[in-house]
Amino acid sequence: MKKRNTGFSNFILIPAMLTLFLCNNTSAQNNTQVVRLAKLVIDSTHLESYKAALKEGIEASVRLESGVLTLYAVAEKNNPTHITILEIYADTAAYKTHLQTPHFIKYKTGTKEMVRSLELIETIPLVPGMKIK
Amino acid sequence: MKKRNTGFSNFILIPAMLTLFLCNNTSAQNNTQVVRLAKLVIDSTHLESYKAALKEGIEASVRLESGVLTLYAVAEKNNPTHITILEIYADTAAYKTHLQTPHFIKYKTGTKEMVRSLELIETIPLVPGMKIK
Repeated sequence: MKKRNTGFSNFILIPAMLTLFLCNNTSAQNNTQVVRLAKLVIDSTHLESYKAALKEGIEASVRLESGVLTLYAVAEKNNPTHITILEIYADTAAYKTHLQTPHFIKYKTGTKEMVRSLELIETIPLVPGMKIK
Repeated sequence: MKKRNTGFSNFILIPAMLTLFLCNNTSAQNNTQVVRLAKLVIDSTHLESYKAALKEGIEASVRLESGVLTLYAVAEKNNPTHITILEIYADTAAYKTHLQTPHFIKYKTGTKEMVRSLELIETIPLVPGMKIK
């Protein structure tokens, strides 16, 4: 009888503990995310080259790095040289790893002369688990 | 024999046309997306109430409206009253529908006196199909 009780407890406790662990883990992941806005102004004479390099860099980062959760880049319709990127990294380590990748270094060195200004704004997301459908 | 040829043509053509239709449709969806940045400055004395109302409005919109693809809101760490929202709607119709929903009207009227400034910036996404992992 004692054995049966232990079995039943495990039956309840293990899934409960697993759920708790997963929930805590998800919460921790959201709390450690690095979320920021990069605001760039590009030299208009190099805009198309810049956008091609940025697109290549973004696509490689999102494809190859599990810790790069998104790099959503937009150009303003009325000021096409004004680019904003919503950057989300899983955590600081993922961001540091990103900076060392060949594709990021290629983008950064290749576009150095095209960027007139860059502002990095650290942010806090209002709904941390938000996705894009 | 003629009948068999027609059957074979259909066997190839229908999936091919379906693929073409679906690809075009996906492309059209991306081209018709409304993607913009909303930049707000909030009255500091009402910041917590504003953020609660925005969170409630965003969660209802994303849950209830299939055409609201994301509303990713961030507050600047160094200027917490400065809020930026990346808004993505499936198309103009989805955006117009959004403006008529009870949850949007509740948010808009409820926060009217809390918003010091609002700038809506129409944008073009660099990688239209980009998601958040």
